[in-house]
Amino acid sequence: MANNRIKPKERKGIYQVFGINGVSSILKSNKYLIQAIEILEKSHVTKNTVIRELLKSNASQMRYLDHDTFYKKYGEKRTQGIVISFSGNLVKALPSFKKIEGDSCLLIVDNITDPQNFGQIIRTAECAGVNGIIIPERNSVGITDIVLQVSQGAFCNMPIYSVTNLNQTLSQLKKDDFWAIAVENGIDAQPWNQIDYTGKIAIVIGSEGQGIKPLVLKSCDFQTTIPMQGKTASLNVSAATAVVLFERLRQITSD
Amino acid sequence: MANNRIKPKERKGIYQVFGINGVSSILKSNKYLIQAIEILEKSHVTKNTVIRELLKSNASQMRYLDHDTFYKKYGEKRTQGIVISFSGNLVKALPSFKKIEGDSCLLIVDNITDPQNFGQIIRTAECAGVNGIIIPERNSVGITDIVLQVSQGAFCNMPIYSVTNLNQTLSQLKKDDFWAIAVENGIDAQPWNQIDYTGKIAIVIGSEGQGIKPLVLKSCDFQTTIPMQGKTASLNVSAATAVVLFERLRQITSD
Repeated sequence: MANNRIKPKERKGIYQVFGINGVSSILKSNKYLIQAIEILEKSHVTKNTVIRELLKSNASQMRYLDHDTFYKKYGEKRTQGIVISFSGNLVKALPSFKKIEGDSCLLIVDNITDPQNFGQIIRTAECAGVNGIIIPERNSVGITDIVLQVSQGAFCNMPIYSVTNLNQTLSQLKKDDFWAIAVENGIDAQPWNQIDYTGKIAIVIGSEGQGIKPLVLKSCDFQTTIPMQGKTASLNVSAATAVVLFERLRQITSD
Repeated sequence: MANNRIKPKERKGIYQVFGINGVSSILKSNKYLIQAIEILEKSHVTKNTVIRELLKSNASQMRYLDHDTFYKKYGEKRTQGIVISFSGNLVKALPSFKKIEGDSCLLIVDNITDPQNFGQIIRTAECAGVNGIIIPERNSVGITDIVLQVSQGAFCNMPIYSVTNLNQTLSQLKKDDFWAIAVENGIDAQPWNQIDYTGKIAIVIGSEGQGIKPLVLKSCDFQTTIPMQGKTASLNVSAATAVVLFERLRQITSD
């Protein structure tokens, strides 16, 4: 995995996130270079004790904006009166997972195109105790402001690894004792609750329309599906991810 | 529940949904009065065999629009070249569930404010085999075009009941042998996977910010929570709904 090139925007871009959850996650994490914190004068957020405490150590980046200026800039967004601009490395090169032991889960996101879905998946993965998210360098939505916003700050605490070739990554993970489980409605797929998620596993999810690419699917050890009970063809991909990740959590936390 | 008044928009409004999934669900259901079906000339959708077959019985409502006219009207939306306008009753009065037997689940949505979340919840509930969704007449997002769009047509196959008073509804359901389970991070809440979801149950979920209203919460028999494994405070409400509804499905389908 020597050649994990990262797109310029991902390496050097300035990101913008708004709202109390997102802003406080970024400030608490101490991982990013804070460019600016814009606050709506006299808004509710100025009284939020958590935010006030966090802002003390970032006083030089803070700017209070009056109502007209703030709404001209951010009017339509649900900012809660606070917007942070920051830069930093949001994706990393994949390290070796050979030596980790016990229940471990990497989530491989093949080809998600909707930033809402990707943001939700990051949030859900962080809530479910996933160890990291792996995305292909090309062909996915990438890390955009919307992705970060929707994740509600979860990206600060969830390692995101960018790789050039998912098949090579899967081969390496399998050498490092991971089992690869594809969430895909194939003929050989077993119901989501009949899969063993204990130990070292990589869960692979595909795009909203096309699912997992055939070559990637072929590299997986198991396929699992969530049987639909009604007439709708499928769950939204972020809902399906939640169902599988919390079934895993149920299994690894059950006595 | 004699006084289940429905807002004018919900009773008499014209709704608009786009895309192949949504449009075909509406046409297949035969439940609504089709006002118009607008199709982008020469687009991919005109070759979709399912859509073509369904359009045969609605030929008089069909209109082909040239590229400029269509994009002027719907440019920014992901229409897949097809938009349907229709009217009909999307919400009903709550019937008696006294006589139904065996595993049954009603989902009570207390106070959701985000149409994306409500749409996802309808889709997830339909996929999970829920028997119906109950919403309060006031204080929730209501049935909007965005809700319908995000549900991907699931609203056609998922009864949505509007009630004036959730507490009265819960009292009635409990008389009719339902157990009420609140998804809420309270002191008495048990983990989501330690709740018994078999039999007749009503699952109550609350709003994104405030959760379930205290009086409604007090009317519930159990509280359940999904323990967070990371630093993020909570799952998105539609993800939490997916986790709970599919844990129920796992329990009722396990041998």
